[in-house]
Amino acid sequence: MSDKSTRDHIVEAADQLFYQQGFEHTSFSNIADAVRISRGNFYYHFKSKDQILKAVIERRLADTRQMLQQWERDGSRPADRIRSFIHILTTNRAPIMRHGCPVGTLCTELAKLNHSSRTEANELFTLFRTWLRKQFRQLGRKRDADALAMHVLAWSQGVATLANAFHNEAFIKREVRQMCEWLSSYEDDAACETHADSEPRA
Amino acid sequence: MSDKSTRDHIVEAADQLFYQQGFEHTSFSNIADAVRISRGNFYYHFKSKDQILKAVIERRLADTRQMLQQWERDGSRPADRIRSFIHILTTNRAPIMRHGCPVGTLCTELAKLNHSSRTEANELFTLFRTWLRKQFRQLGRKRDADALAMHVLAWSQGVATLANAFHNEAFIKREVRQMCEWLSSYEDDAACETHADSEPRA
Repeated sequence: MSDKSTRDHIVEAADQLFYQQGFEHTSFSNIADAVRISRGNFYYHFKSKDQILKAVIERRLADTRQMLQQWERDGSRPADRIRSFIHILTTNRAPIMRHGCPVGTLCTELAKLNHSSRTEANELFTLFRTWLRKQFRQLGRKRDADALAMHVLAWSQGVATLANAFHNEAFIKREVRQMCEWLSSYEDDAACETHADSEPRA
Repeated sequence: MSDKSTRDHIVEAADQLFYQQGFEHTSFSNIADAVRISRGNFYYHFKSKDQILKAVIERRLADTRQMLQQWERDGSRPADRIRSFIHILTTNRAPIMRHGCPVGTLCTELAKLNHSSRTEANELFTLFRTWLRKQFRQLGRKRDADALAMHVLAWSQGVATLANAFHNEAFIKREVRQMCEWLSSYEDDAACETHADSEPRA
């Protein structure tokens, strides 16, 4: 393994373990064991669990930015892009039912620990919020774009929390359907507005 | 302190600490220190943190049952009772912004720890779910009472998670207002149904 890939392996393993069993519950040696490298090599890359957490958050931020850019490219209309967000609940339903949302559960845990990396972790939520706000603006909801972004973000968080507690796949699917219906009503509004704008006034 | 009250003090202190800083992060001695009793006296009541967790969950279950019964007595109409549930978000906004929802965050943490008391903790959610379902049934929504109960439960969970991340009081108030408006639409439906039922057919 090259230096770079060893570090990547550590961060990747830590990311998984923090998600699956929580940050506090994951020990430095849990991570070393998962990566199967010597303690010496491990310490060469990271001196503390907090350092690994920082790297995990940076990695997640980079991955999230990339995913949002991809959704931007994939969806020609803003509502299609918001649907990409909603559908993570369906795509990731198996891990969500087992471990909850990776963003929500990390932010909640770091808040309780009053951890110094809390602000960086919340930045993950801010990425989604800012991106969703942009989509709602493009959907013609300039005034309440941020409120709508926060609403759909909260909705998805609530679905993840209850899906995790009740292990209920039908519940996820039903809520995703309702989120899409809710979104369609804004799409219809936007279509009406566009239509009204393009029509000559009587 | 009598025997009973010492035990109660321990459970109360543990409940607060688990909520404020998480179960995993709270040590046996943190709790003993908070209650300010000797280790001997402490061990007389509880031999392990898991035993305390069980007692904390039992206490919360008892308190929740009592609260739901109180809402039942206070609200003459089912929608008023559901509003009592929604308004916990407003009443408890300060601790929610600091530590999230006590039920959601405990269930999420125990899921990650794959803790043996997980099922008992989820019972807290089930109490709310069953109670809300009953209210929606009384509101005339016999078919989708459970879906509506899960929806309002998820909504409140999502609001708590994001309020905790963003420390945003205006967001809580806005979402609570929207939840009440959403509920009112079902109330209107129920009123229409009742009205239609009481009217002689043409």
